[in-house]
Amino acid sequence: MEEKEEERKKEQNPEKKEKEGGHEKHKEKKGKAVEQKDKVKVVKGARDFLPYQMAIRDKAFSIIKNVFKKHGAVEIDTPVFELKETLMGKYGEDSKLIYDLNDQGGELLSLRYDLTVPFARFMAVHNIPSIKRFHIGKVYRRDSPQMSKGRFREFYQCDFDIAGPNYGKMIPEAEVLKVVVEILTQLPVGGFNIKLNHRKLLDAIVNISGIPEEKFKIVCSSVDKLDKEEWNTVKAELLSKGVSEEQADKLWEYVQLKDKPKELLKKLETLNELMGNEKGKLALEEMGILFDYIEIEGVDKYCTFDLSLARGLDYYTGLIYETVLTDTDKVGSISGGGRFDDLVGMFSGKQIPAVGVSIGIERIFNILEEKLKDDPSLRSVETEILIAAVGKNLTKERFKLVNELWDNGFKAEILYNENPRMDKQMDYAVNNRIPFMVFIGDNELKENKIKIKCMANGNEIMEERNKLVETLKKLKEDPELLKVKMPEKKDNKEKKQKEKNEGKKDKKDDKEENKEKEEKKTE
Amino acid sequence: MEEKEEERKKEQNPEKKEKEGGHEKHKEKKGKAVEQKDKVKVVKGARDFLPYQMAIRDKAFSIIKNVFKKHGAVEIDTPVFELKETLMGKYGEDSKLIYDLNDQGGELLSLRYDLTVPFARFMAVHNIPSIKRFHIGKVYRRDSPQMSKGRFREFYQCDFDIAGPNYGKMIPEAEVLKVVVEILTQLPVGGFNIKLNHRKLLDAIVNISGIPEEKFKIVCSSVDKLDKEEWNTVKAELLSKGVSEEQADKLWEYVQLKDKPKELLKKLETLNELMGNEKGKLALEEMGILFDYIEIEGVDKYCTFDLSLARGLDYYTGLIYETVLTDTDKVGSISGGGRFDDLVGMFSGKQIPAVGVSIGIERIFNILEEKLKDDPSLRSVETEILIAAVGKNLTKERFKLVNELWDNGFKAEILYNENPRMDKQMDYAVNNRIPFMVFIGDNELKENKIKIKCMANGNEIMEERNKLVETLKKLKEDPELLKVKMPEKKDNKEKKQKEKNEGKKDKKDDKEENKEKEEKKTE
Repeated sequence: MEEKEEERKKEQNPEKKEKEGGHEKHKEKKGKAVEQKDKVKVVKGARDFLPYQMAIRDKAFSIIKNVFKKHGAVEIDTPVFELKETLMGKYGEDSKLIYDLNDQGGELLSLRYDLTVPFARFMAVHNIPSIKRFHIGKVYRRDSPQMSKGRFREFYQCDFDIAGPNYGKMIPEAEVLKVVVEILTQLPVGGFNIKLNHRKLLDAIVNISGIPEEKFKIVCSSVDKLDKEEWNTVKAELLSKGVSEEQADKLWEYVQLKDKPKELLKKLETLNELMGNEKGKLALEEMGILFDYIEIEGVDKYCTFDLSLARGLDYYTGLIYETVLTDTDKVGSISGGGRFDDLVGMFSGKQIPAVGVSIGIERIFNILEEKLKDDPSLRSVETEILIAAVGKNLTKERFKLVNELWDNGFKAEILYNENPRMDKQMDYAVNNRIPFMVFIGDNELKENKIKIKCMANGNEIMEERNKLVETLKKLKEDPELLKVKMPEKKDNKEKKQKEKNEGKKDKKDDKEENKEKEEKKTE
Repeated sequence: MEEKEEERKKEQNPEKKEKEGGHEKHKEKKGKAVEQKDKVKVVKGARDFLPYQMAIRDKAFSIIKNVFKKHGAVEIDTPVFELKETLMGKYGEDSKLIYDLNDQGGELLSLRYDLTVPFARFMAVHNIPSIKRFHIGKVYRRDSPQMSKGRFREFYQCDFDIAGPNYGKMIPEAEVLKVVVEILTQLPVGGFNIKLNHRKLLDAIVNISGIPEEKFKIVCSSVDKLDKEEWNTVKAELLSKGVSEEQADKLWEYVQLKDKPKELLKKLETLNELMGNEKGKLALEEMGILFDYIEIEGVDKYCTFDLSLARGLDYYTGLIYETVLTDTDKVGSISGGGRFDDLVGMFSGKQIPAVGVSIGIERIFNILEEKLKDDPSLRSVETEILIAAVGKNLTKERFKLVNELWDNGFKAEILYNENPRMDKQMDYAVNNRIPFMVFIGDNELKENKIKIKCMANGNEIMEERNKLVETLKKLKEDPELLKVKMPEKKDNKEKKQKEKNEGKKDKKDDKEENKEKEEKKTE
């Protein structure tokens, strides 16, 4: 039915060029077929998750969630859309990146742009005065996608925020930084560096440089580029924005400073013009408190106090931070956040001070896909036992066995063919790295026995039929028997064995096999 | 900044009535304030998940996922939106319920209406010939919401499908039914009944009744109402659709039949007009094969062979099923599915036969919220240890202790106040059912000791400071110490103790406290 309707549409909307001469028409027909096929695609800037990618995503989320829960956070969720009105006026120029829904009658809706505005709306609707919560959800931005760099139009955010009044100075901040360090040391992303700065310190520096307050935002957006651009380029941009030569040079004196937290703090505390500035003094006091706490936590060694960190957003009111990976230059910042005291309460009318962090998980997925592709513990099929038939017409016997295993909590499968071939059954077990196979055939039936094969070492065990469950439970307890190697291509086996002896590894083949493994579930 | 912009908007768009006289104006101002507050709300038909609801959702998903994985299924995910074109013409009249996105330039998009069409698109894009996959995701329908009955505009679907060519008859079907039974016996939803029927049997019955084939769909949609309506009502509807009196009566002879699977099958096999119908004979043969398998699986006792089960959808080609709860009449069907051989391959151009089931999780959430609200194992805060200060200026000491616990894998917290009051610390531990408190004060510091309190039994232990981790690890191993009771309201404690002695329970209060617990995270 559906395909017919598509056909009809095609006929009703013939391409112009089809009216032209034979040769052109032929070409166009070919083009059309391709176009038709092209229409079946994923939305631009979004992506499907294939099974092996889901296994990686699951692993990453599970690490992240566990750290959040370890620190006493509760989880919440909100709808993927909000009233258009709720999002309006919250994102400045970036509002143009918001996806609106069609006006189909009823409320006007938009897809959420981040998890922060929905969080504020959540606090107001449920009248919650304080919370430590995390929220992992997809957000939507009509940005130009750069998928290889992890920039999508539909992407996950993992937000962790501590919100509530009257908390001690820098106590929640210190915990948020600990959370970041715990997550990034558990996720195998390699080395990382957390840059720290303070909004009020930036205020002070801009002020000391003689730059008028109303230029604060545009100055920060230029300064923020210093991680990628030379000072000369940034300076030129500042001059073009109406900052004077002298002001820019004074600014540069400060924003070039970066060092280990306590080192830079000590230096800054000797600068009279900074200590004489009210905001500057306050910021340095707070940083001093924080640095004591993160030293206790062992977090300081991952941190740099970096006066060029400005972050794009205007709503920060205190500490700001951003994490970059040090072993790769492929991805930009993979987490960022800070204190934002005026945002969470914006709908409730009460101020709810808050500090939080957002983990850029898409970029992390990209790295993990590369790093975990050979991880033997990562399986997208978790089956422990495949029941295989030796001979024909054994489907009921297979069902009896597999059902006994299901009822005893095992992850078990049979193939769905009436009379599956032995090579297909073997391939399925090998390709999915299933640790045990159980064989049932006429001989076994006659003798009331079953044969168990341990795929990790090839050992075969002949066992009484009624001892199947007991024996498999024992076998499962041996972790060595659960470690089944990645399958190898048959024609590569010899070559690989040779390479293995030489200590090499054919990474490309592994990758291909990984893909094949995912597409294996043929009969 | 954001609030100011809202203010500005308000000023630019003054309400008409504000121009009227003083009294009216005053009234209107009040009205406006309320209206302004009203605007802060969740989108109609969608809902937030509060922490205790998330804990329930997590538990339900975890049970469902484990069963899917136990049966060897892989997980996939797709974007929340598809090209409008991908969804067009797939849902018949229900297409009007699809949410479209605004045309903001670029591709025209719609929110997914179910997970089945995206699944078919996924198979085509990634060129996958066969798969056993599950997909848990939110879908969107502009339907009239009935939230108390679990009907939302944004809701989860949990789909499990086995798709691939050349599988043995009824083998995947039997596994899908086993999956349904495993999930519904593990989720505490009470009793349930799986109704079974066969599309080709319905074809045969309609044919035998003399009803023309083109009326099949509308006849089925009437017959499907027999679970709620009397036959007379349904019959009247059929007559109004142009079915004759005689045809309707003949139809009724069949669709009123329901019984235990093998009982009804035996009866139907004696009916010559059914066995003489090609489709009828085929359907009964298949049902016979299935009933043998589900008997082996112990699934048959949950099933009824019910000829009135027609399901709304047109795309089924073989077995169909639907599950209803038998201990409640609050919710309708909570799972349904069947064989649909022509749907999954619709974009790839190859036929990919498939059988699957969709679990209606929102309705299950409603039931679980009611059933699990007193479950002592269900905590939205998972913290194991609260470090509490006895006395002032102990924040660094608290950080040292809590950090030692974090680094040793414990779930631990401190309160964020500089000098938290003892009653606040106690309340936090009690309200969140944290099993252990660790106290640090000047005395403990002097003697290099710490005090541990087990909240389950009130026991206190004084321990060497350097044995903290070791001691807590041991304490955690005692499951009795992890079972901390729900907090009670102080003024209810005596009353409750009395009731407990009498074997009663004040459910209403428990519920209120449950809510309070969620809103507790105040300082």
